[in-house]
Amino acid sequence: MAHPYTAPLADMRFVIEEVLQAPASWARCGRFAEVDAGMAAQVLEEAGRFAAEVLAPTNAPGDLEGCRLDQGQVRTPGGFREAYRTFVDGGWPALACDAQWGGQGLPLLLEAALYEMLLSCNQAWSMYPGLLHGAYATLEAHGSEALKALYLPKLASGEWLAAMALTEPQAGSDLGQVRTRAEAQADGSLRVTGSKIFISGADHDLTDNIVHLVLCRLPDAPPGSKGLSLALVPKLLPDGSRNGIEVDALEHKMGIHGSATCALRYEGATGWLIGAPHRGLQAMFVMMNAARLHVGLQGLGHLERATQSALAYAAERRQLRAPAVPEGQDHRGADPIAWHPAMRRTLWTLRALTEGLRVVAYRAALLIDEAQHHADPERRARSQRLAALLTPIVKAFGTHQGFQGVSAALQVFGGYGYVHEYGIEQQLRDLRIALIYEGTNEIQAIDLLQRKVLADGGAALHALVDDIEAEAARCEAALPHMAEALRRECARLLEATAALQAGREQDPEWPLRVADDYLMGCGHLLLAWAWAAMARAAAGGDDAARARHQRELADFGLQWLLPQAERHWRQVLAREAGLPWV
Amino acid sequence: MAHPYTAPLADMRFVIEEVLQAPASWARCGRFAEVDAGMAAQVLEEAGRFAAEVLAPTNAPGDLEGCRLDQGQVRTPGGFREAYRTFVDGGWPALACDAQWGGQGLPLLLEAALYEMLLSCNQAWSMYPGLLHGAYATLEAHGSEALKALYLPKLASGEWLAAMALTEPQAGSDLGQVRTRAEAQADGSLRVTGSKIFISGADHDLTDNIVHLVLCRLPDAPPGSKGLSLALVPKLLPDGSRNGIEVDALEHKMGIHGSATCALRYEGATGWLIGAPHRGLQAMFVMMNAARLHVGLQGLGHLERATQSALAYAAERRQLRAPAVPEGQDHRGADPIAWHPAMRRTLWTLRALTEGLRVVAYRAALLIDEAQHHADPERRARSQRLAALLTPIVKAFGTHQGFQGVSAALQVFGGYGYVHEYGIEQQLRDLRIALIYEGTNEIQAIDLLQRKVLADGGAALHALVDDIEAEAARCEAALPHMAEALRRECARLLEATAALQAGREQDPEWPLRVADDYLMGCGHLLLAWAWAAMARAAAGGDDAARARHQRELADFGLQWLLPQAERHWRQVLAREAGLPWV
Repeated sequence: MAHPYTAPLADMRFVIEEVLQAPASWARCGRFAEVDAGMAAQVLEEAGRFAAEVLAPTNAPGDLEGCRLDQGQVRTPGGFREAYRTFVDGGWPALACDAQWGGQGLPLLLEAALYEMLLSCNQAWSMYPGLLHGAYATLEAHGSEALKALYLPKLASGEWLAAMALTEPQAGSDLGQVRTRAEAQADGSLRVTGSKIFISGADHDLTDNIVHLVLCRLPDAPPGSKGLSLALVPKLLPDGSRNGIEVDALEHKMGIHGSATCALRYEGATGWLIGAPHRGLQAMFVMMNAARLHVGLQGLGHLERATQSALAYAAERRQLRAPAVPEGQDHRGADPIAWHPAMRRTLWTLRALTEGLRVVAYRAALLIDEAQHHADPERRARSQRLAALLTPIVKAFGTHQGFQGVSAALQVFGGYGYVHEYGIEQQLRDLRIALIYEGTNEIQAIDLLQRKVLADGGAALHALVDDIEAEAARCEAALPHMAEALRRECARLLEATAALQAGREQDPEWPLRVADDYLMGCGHLLLAWAWAAMARAAAGGDDAARARHQRELADFGLQWLLPQAERHWRQVLAREAGLPWV
Repeated sequence: MAHPYTAPLADMRFVIEEVLQAPASWARCGRFAEVDAGMAAQVLEEAGRFAAEVLAPTNAPGDLEGCRLDQGQVRTPGGFREAYRTFVDGGWPALACDAQWGGQGLPLLLEAALYEMLLSCNQAWSMYPGLLHGAYATLEAHGSEALKALYLPKLASGEWLAAMALTEPQAGSDLGQVRTRAEAQADGSLRVTGSKIFISGADHDLTDNIVHLVLCRLPDAPPGSKGLSLALVPKLLPDGSRNGIEVDALEHKMGIHGSATCALRYEGATGWLIGAPHRGLQAMFVMMNAARLHVGLQGLGHLERATQSALAYAAERRQLRAPAVPEGQDHRGADPIAWHPAMRRTLWTLRALTEGLRVVAYRAALLIDEAQHHADPERRARSQRLAALLTPIVKAFGTHQGFQGVSAALQVFGGYGYVHEYGIEQQLRDLRIALIYEGTNEIQAIDLLQRKVLADGGAALHALVDDIEAEAARCEAALPHMAEALRRECARLLEATAALQAGREQDPEWPLRVADDYLMGCGHLLLAWAWAAMARAAAGGDDAARARHQRELADFGLQWLLPQAERHWRQVLAREAGLPWV
């Protein structure tokens, strides 16, 4: 049996209240003026109970059973419907939605924490409700008043769910090749025809209606990505009749077996335009950015679960004699593997990745909240830039480190990690998709370097560096070695960025060759920032055990993990390293 | 459909003939005096035909169908029996076995190349015949004449297969905890009772008889690993009756679904001692070393297959416009993803890992051949030391890089990599076990550093460094930058080793904390050696395309991959980086 999941409420509250000091920010955001630390804690506690008690038990059975296609209708595994009903009854889909549409109007940061817990307990299930938020945000930002009035309350309540129908066989990373056609009808609606693949949640039995946001092309569209439009195509039309959507197949996947990944056809299906004609990509970006944060949270959620499991197993599994024992302990036969140096290193690596990525991901969520709701327009603009900068890092670095971390956790279990028993091999299979969907990690790296850093002349990047150097200043007195590490890493980032700015005209391929390294370097810097900020915040608090833990965690991270960054920055700067043709 | 597998015969011959110059070594090994390059090439060609035509088609169906347990008897997936029959009829099990026992007496190096191809085409299937070699070697070295006469001819021909029954629920890495009991009978046989888990090939329907080598404990055994004995326990007794072996369950695994991983009981089963009482671990090491090389070949086999698949897919898949086009090509709509810098980097990484690891693994096999058969006793002893040094690196570094490489190849396929269609996700699931079995990679790292380097005062290590520096000298004139890189990396290795030698008494945990880094540093050095040796060998040949390819490969490896080594050596030397208790 998998080890039970315990929601990391104390760690979450520490990050939200002490490290990010979110309540102070909420006080400056009109919409969140009534949210305080106590209310947030209550929300997290309830969410943790749902995740651990209701959702977690559906995970392993859902993997084994999987979805099936039954006469054109997708059936989810046993228990998924019941868990979703409880989720809806608890009002969870509406958590961060606007009160105008029936939502609770709470910060996205709390929704991020909610999803971290859901994803720790069942990634496949969590993808169904996870998809509604992007659709909600897109519709809220770009939908007509009529569409908003009809669909937003249903999405906010979770009565209906949503799907993002982008990919086609020939159009994956290259959405400009989308061929699905939409023709305007006399009544203002669209007639949508085409085939899509790899569409998560395009059909299922959790809700009656499913709102598809479909990337398509109007007859007069220019070729390529500038000719894409976005259509809302519901499974059930407003009159209750079935729309022309046919599910042809479920994909046979490595993992997330409980998530329905559909190949489907729109056969003259009725839809409505969202946003302006040919501006579908812009409308879609709202959806994609929310989705990227959610994917990054998949890395975090799996890391938290894998860390808990590996720690529990390493404490109970006894193999061989360790070279030393903790104070107050003795050798008694074989020692817990948690005492062996190689395992201690893995376990602290897992802790450092998990706790560090939580700060990074939650910070991105807080920035999005501020970008939308802060009273100060300059702060809104600054937070928007920073959120846009962090999003591809949270997605790609979070899922990369999540996958590596879960694989390291699997190794702790030895042979038991390779069989179903402890659930860790399922985690590795489930999480692998997160490095691919919502834009592959390679695409994220190019987005970060080309669009978020080089294109804006470094404005967002300098805001980030200012924040990290402010943390270095706060660390200066009590934790000078952390201040020094942060300043050193910021200098490396700035040096690499300046070199790329100066050299890319002469060698336009250069940023594309090293974008992955650039993103990894940034990710390691963000982790270091997180470890230092946690150590500094805890050192100033009155919880001695927390202070000691965060100090040990930060020292471990700086000594054992941060050194990985240097190679990436060197690789960025190694201009002579060319790439031959294949 | 998965891309077809093409046996990399030209690459293999280049390594065997030009880089390792194995035929010259064979000429000095009495047993192989009649083996020449032409004969070897013929063997490889036939083997490649079997792998590609007979074995490869069983791989994906075998994964989907898996093994099943039918009234205590394991049934392998459809096609496995037929493929095995063809394999036996071709005489392949006997390839490297002694002529005295019906074998063909060919070099282990050719057997390694055979298994690389088998593992590229079906890891799960290849594990069945793969297990016979370790059992054969153990029995040949430690079995009584009666056991050898009865069992070796059957194993060599493949008429019977074998299983290594070591692990028990409480005894994984810690074999000293093995509890299975063996009691001596009046007729000189043993009565074996106990439970084993995770036993590959303990039962199946490929052969009638299966020879179990069982780690067990005699009544008067001292506790721990010094009290282990090794027993031969056949499924069918010499009189044809069933022995007391009961299969309780098949493990439900992440991958290698076609390989029967059994939980089983010996219920007073009849067996015979192999080697001296309480000396089972020593007898077993013969088996384990052969098995570790085979596991390392799993990394190589999967890398070769994944590289072929990713190259084929990247050439045919068109997405987005690349920043530049190869000479003589034009943009026509979207470009092949093989033209995009991030993909070129991945594809060259795959090539560099595959070709480099082939040299490393084949070199280890050649050293084992020399250790057993070379005419010069000093050369035998030297090759033995080097083979023992390389074995844990081949196992751990080969499987680590294999797993990372296959995951990188999966990424080339985007969403198509996560579904069954191209077979790459199966490769990732299958290969993951190789980082665990036959001693986890963490155990290999400790074996390398503690037993193969520090315990012998560096004798084997200095022999290795001498060989690498000899290659540097050969590179000096035409490829001075490669000579310099090899010397620099050797110096790093020697510096780290000397520091550990000097400091470990004061801090006995130090080698255990950094053994993983030490092994990774060694692995990167071996890759660099391989790239340089290939470039140098090709530069001196008359195949201009080969020379250009190996030069590009070596330059790529030194520029993009070797920089990873530095961090590992620094981590080894970072004595202040302590590990807190968990």
